[in-house]
Amino acid sequence: MTTPTPNQKIIYTLTDEAPYLATGSLLPIVRAFTSAAGVEVETSDISVAARILAAFPEKLTDDQKVPDTLAELGELTLDPNANIIKLPNISASIPQLKAAIAELQAQGYDVPNYPDEAVTEEEKAIQANYSKILGSAVNPVLRQGNSDRRAPPAVKAFARKFPHSMGKWSKASRSHADYMRGGDFFSSEQSVTMTDADEVRIEFVGQNSNVEVKKSLKLEAAEVLDSMFMSAKALDAFFERTLQECKEDGVMWSLHVKATMMKVSHPIVFGHAVRVFYREVFEKYGELFEQLGVNPNNGMASVYDKIKTLPQSQQEEIEEAIHACYEHRPEMAMVDSVKGITNLHIPSDVIVDASMPAMIRSSGQMWGRDGKIKDTKAVMPESTYARIYQEMINFCRTNGAFDPTTMGSVPNVGLMAMKAEEYGSHDKTFEMKEDGVMRVVKSDGTVLMQHNVEKGDIWRACQTKDAAVRDWVKLAVTRSRQSDTPAIFWLDAERAHDRQLRLKVEEYLKEHDTAGLDLRIMGYNRAIRTSMERMIRGKDTISVTGNVLRDYLTDLFPIMELGTSAKMLSIVPMLAGGGMYETGAGGSAPKHVQQVLEENHLRWDSLGEFLALAVSIEELGIKNDNAQAKLLAKALDAATGKLLENNKSPSRKVGELDNRGSHFYLAMYWAQELAAQTEDTALSARFAPLAKSLTENEEKIIAELSAVQGQPADIGGYYHPDMAKVDAVMRPSETLNSALSSL
Amino acid sequence: MTTPTPNQKIIYTLTDEAPYLATGSLLPIVRAFTSAAGVEVETSDISVAARILAAFPEKLTDDQKVPDTLAELGELTLDPNANIIKLPNISASIPQLKAAIAELQAQGYDVPNYPDEAVTEEEKAIQANYSKILGSAVNPVLRQGNSDRRAPPAVKAFARKFPHSMGKWSKASRSHADYMRGGDFFSSEQSVTMTDADEVRIEFVGQNSNVEVKKSLKLEAAEVLDSMFMSAKALDAFFERTLQECKEDGVMWSLHVKATMMKVSHPIVFGHAVRVFYREVFEKYGELFEQLGVNPNNGMASVYDKIKTLPQSQQEEIEEAIHACYEHRPEMAMVDSVKGITNLHIPSDVIVDASMPAMIRSSGQMWGRDGKIKDTKAVMPESTYARIYQEMINFCRTNGAFDPTTMGSVPNVGLMAMKAEEYGSHDKTFEMKEDGVMRVVKSDGTVLMQHNVEKGDIWRACQTKDAAVRDWVKLAVTRSRQSDTPAIFWLDAERAHDRQLRLKVEEYLKEHDTAGLDLRIMGYNRAIRTSMERMIRGKDTISVTGNVLRDYLTDLFPIMELGTSAKMLSIVPMLAGGGMYETGAGGSAPKHVQQVLEENHLRWDSLGEFLALAVSIEELGIKNDNAQAKLLAKALDAATGKLLENNKSPSRKVGELDNRGSHFYLAMYWAQELAAQTEDTALSARFAPLAKSLTENEEKIIAELSAVQGQPADIGGYYHPDMAKVDAVMRPSETLNSALSSL
Repeated sequence: MTTPTPNQKIIYTLTDEAPYLATGSLLPIVRAFTSAAGVEVETSDISVAARILAAFPEKLTDDQKVPDTLAELGELTLDPNANIIKLPNISASIPQLKAAIAELQAQGYDVPNYPDEAVTEEEKAIQANYSKILGSAVNPVLRQGNSDRRAPPAVKAFARKFPHSMGKWSKASRSHADYMRGGDFFSSEQSVTMTDADEVRIEFVGQNSNVEVKKSLKLEAAEVLDSMFMSAKALDAFFERTLQECKEDGVMWSLHVKATMMKVSHPIVFGHAVRVFYREVFEKYGELFEQLGVNPNNGMASVYDKIKTLPQSQQEEIEEAIHACYEHRPEMAMVDSVKGITNLHIPSDVIVDASMPAMIRSSGQMWGRDGKIKDTKAVMPESTYARIYQEMINFCRTNGAFDPTTMGSVPNVGLMAMKAEEYGSHDKTFEMKEDGVMRVVKSDGTVLMQHNVEKGDIWRACQTKDAAVRDWVKLAVTRSRQSDTPAIFWLDAERAHDRQLRLKVEEYLKEHDTAGLDLRIMGYNRAIRTSMERMIRGKDTISVTGNVLRDYLTDLFPIMELGTSAKMLSIVPMLAGGGMYETGAGGSAPKHVQQVLEENHLRWDSLGEFLALAVSIEELGIKNDNAQAKLLAKALDAATGKLLENNKSPSRKVGELDNRGSHFYLAMYWAQELAAQTEDTALSARFAPLAKSLTENEEKIIAELSAVQGQPADIGGYYHPDMAKVDAVMRPSETLNSALSSL
Repeated sequence: MTTPTPNQKIIYTLTDEAPYLATGSLLPIVRAFTSAAGVEVETSDISVAARILAAFPEKLTDDQKVPDTLAELGELTLDPNANIIKLPNISASIPQLKAAIAELQAQGYDVPNYPDEAVTEEEKAIQANYSKILGSAVNPVLRQGNSDRRAPPAVKAFARKFPHSMGKWSKASRSHADYMRGGDFFSSEQSVTMTDADEVRIEFVGQNSNVEVKKSLKLEAAEVLDSMFMSAKALDAFFERTLQECKEDGVMWSLHVKATMMKVSHPIVFGHAVRVFYREVFEKYGELFEQLGVNPNNGMASVYDKIKTLPQSQQEEIEEAIHACYEHRPEMAMVDSVKGITNLHIPSDVIVDASMPAMIRSSGQMWGRDGKIKDTKAVMPESTYARIYQEMINFCRTNGAFDPTTMGSVPNVGLMAMKAEEYGSHDKTFEMKEDGVMRVVKSDGTVLMQHNVEKGDIWRACQTKDAAVRDWVKLAVTRSRQSDTPAIFWLDAERAHDRQLRLKVEEYLKEHDTAGLDLRIMGYNRAIRTSMERMIRGKDTISVTGNVLRDYLTDLFPIMELGTSAKMLSIVPMLAGGGMYETGAGGSAPKHVQQVLEENHLRWDSLGEFLALAVSIEELGIKNDNAQAKLLAKALDAATGKLLENNKSPSRKVGELDNRGSHFYLAMYWAQELAAQTEDTALSARFAPLAKSLTENEEKIIAELSAVQGQPADIGGYYHPDMAKVDAVMRPSETLNSALSSL
């Protein structure tokens, strides 16, 4: 038996919602198994609640204080031995953040309220602290490498054998994607590659010629810097046009933005949509709303919330005015038609990378007010990315829905390292307070880029480090070689940023042996079209993309191919040499928690964790020359395949197998595999009794796990649940628990 | 003054319908002008009536006999000095042929009836004679070269300045093209390139193993031979599916075939559509219809025609059964909603190359039974070509209607020489009478290609001569060089024939200096998409295509760019060295004649003739070193530009300027240009008096030309009008006539 060394360690993240609950059941199993190979599994809490608590130590008692685990984990990514299993966490919108704060306060933590408008210095400090928790705050810290996402062969085989449902496409579908034809980020984008390192200034020059430095940026040599803006006037005109067209054509209207990831620009875009859709309401009550602190960027929920302080009669008047808008506006897609939650209620409810694949999978339709699915105009202001969805819609209209039983795969190699591209743009995004000029100026005074802007326009800059691009090109070549699959670099000749990247790609490709590889560079439309044409013929094509397209495509294609992106293998080979293994790119699934609370059934599928663990343990085995770890990984892969084959994944229905039952089967198959292998007899001997007891007690354990279902469950909190309660809820089978502890 | 030499001769064809009538007015003007340069303009009658008369000399009196002018003209194409102006002629369908026969018989010509079913030897001989007159019979004889079609700069400039109307496209349009996904010619296509010359046999092997030689073909070395078939069962299932889908989706159904050009295969395809749409009628009355000689390949008109012999009550019963079909079938597009003429009435009414551009120009809509335009499913069984229309529909849905004021141009270089490709397939197309094997066998017994076929399947073979391909590649390189425009060879890697062609293209391109040229090879979808993407950015792209795509694209793009294909310059640089100048690719326009008969107003626009004449006269001037001819051509080009600028093209409304008035203005401007030029004073002196008298008498002449409008006109026949009557109708201005004769 090997004794644990500091390198033989896997960090397993504790996050939020369903993945967190699932961990309560899975982690004890994993620990029981890995300890046999001397592999330690440590946890690291990066939940939104933990991050809030870590941000305000001065407000907490010593008992309540928690370390800044996210920062610690961030440092670990620079360690060549880092091995991190990263589960999905909440990318908190402001409403979600507020809910988490309220919950913590109710639990007795004296964390401050989120200040909607920060006036005092203290408020500003609080807001600044919270802004680091909002949106995609975890990934930029941890993702210190580029991205390698693909469907594991076992998962692909399963999807081909047991295909998920795909809505039939009508060739006469009216659905389409609509995007700005001018005035958006795409049309104004400028991009430069720095010759030398420099500290540049982002400046605003007002009408009075005063120069305001908005930000200074230290740039490396060969770093790419972009700037671009979206015209508020063009955006409003665009929304109005889309509404008019929907009204004329009798097509439902829907908005798809990414307010979580584009956490500064997209809530503003969302707010514009709210103001245009409910134009009469905001014209009539604008001043009152301002007094009340209504923020349309937070959706109509903000209106309903803030007017609660008004007298009943005035509330009703405003509600009537809101309803009057529906009379002359087109039908709007619903998030929850039963509860009357519209697309414009909360900015984080409809997230483009999840909502568009869902729409395309459902015959290009979304849910209407009457609970029926209907053709819809999918409004996505940024033309840069929206075009790929229109291309796919046209493709499905022409060729019918994709067929999971025959279609090929589109794995992704994504540029993500060193906060590449739009992930790093939050602190470089500004809403213009007046007309003027935004410019980027070198330290010697040279103006690198500039735009004439108007009040309300959204301007943003975005950085991409050369080393990240170089590593990305290398990863693309490696993946293309290892998987013997053609790869397409998605770089659009009409986009300023992509023209800069293309020069780098062409240069860095020369550093590799590309003989016999099929590597091409294409614009987005042609890239997705080519990939889809190959896909319906059963052929695979690696998409090599920037950061945003990485995010969008690793939902889009997996949802078509596998029915979910949660089954994708998502690896971040870190620049420093370590590895991060992400699980369940499909989000943290609030609906799942609701079902647990109501009927103690967790439908969360931990397949992503199984797959990530196998790769993580294997990598650890290779690095430490730990043969038992390698065997453990191999057995886990086989167990996962068996679990899929035997359909032991969680069901959505209460009373049937859920997440916990699925974990039991994993443990049983894993133990059986280890017991059956002959390469390491000690290992086999160690797991034989467990395999035997789990196999023999299958019926009993499943019965114990089923017995608890059907009644409400108490986990002591949503954002900050009680660990003991979670343990009790997630580990209800005494037979299973004692079998594991006997190991 | 040069005296006419045998080389100084232009052949001007006399054809049918509106172009023939227009010639009655234009030719005297042209002759008056060209005679000044010693250029003779001879006529050659290739109307369908003339071709019928030439086919049956033994039935006619000596007075009535006419020479076989088409054959004579065919021989002339082999003369390096040939210079032929070819006007549009009727590609007669069987109903049109029968009407022409009836008219000739009424005029006292004893030509035989067309035998629907030829039983006796005599009938077979008659049918064989007539089969040479049917469909596209003229072009294969005359087009002894490849095709060079483009928008003349003056015409393009005019379209940009005075854009034609374009229907707005809704992004939610339900319109689409639909085509077979299997079982059609595309999916079964096989193709071989002959190593050596050989005489091959097309054979049918029946169930009894008997071998029937359907045809022998002499093939040259390096000639490409294709074979393919369309499954009748798959075709019927396809039609049924499209009808069901339209019914479900509430979208109108329309059929677009090319029964004229694909004169053997497409009427059969059309017949299948008729039988499927009116399934119950044909199931119930099939036997009766057979007795009556109903042929669904001739459309529902054939049913209505044949049942006239039945008792009134039985006619009504059948008509009721037909109407009952409309109850459960989707709405069908109408050719004439007022008269109740449906899409399935006559196979030649809806011709894909004209109907699809018209639909795309009209917001993707066609006329419904209620006289309103509606979204429609455009059914085009052959997937080979239908895909380009779907690609354009998707493009317009996404990007809106094309904008004639800014769009670029897509000129065409078409493979057409030596009856290349599908034009030559009529005598190699067979409808299977029983199940068996169709095969192509070399003289040594080697089977080159074979297909398992079933009763009713349509099998065809198609030839492409190597010399034609070689000349086509040369023409593409020449045009790309001369116009400094990128050229795309439309060759689909998934099509067997195109793969053979591609090998040749790659080889023959090496024979030319292509340095600095942008020449690419793409599949159809990518070719049209790339061309459209360039087009909306104002860029031109030469399409280098096979024969069918030549035919389709030279309507499709011109109708978007110029509102009509009649304004295209259409040149056939013949292999032997001569030139043919085609005018008005837009067809012969039966509606125009109807208007002349009803209100003596001819809306036909002779612009195509003006443009062709200018190129024809210029070419003659160059070949004969005839400076005056060159000046005449130059002046004609300028006059045409002026005519367009001053909007002196024919109006569609009675009482306004018509074809004759437009000719007057051409004559006036042409004379003015010649009088004003200073390069040849003799020529100037000769035309000065004419310029003066036409300019001074403009009002009077226009008044004389207008005076005759508004009443019916008599031209003594439709297919075979009376020349004297046509002359009287088309030349009503005494003042103009005497001014011309004074020249």
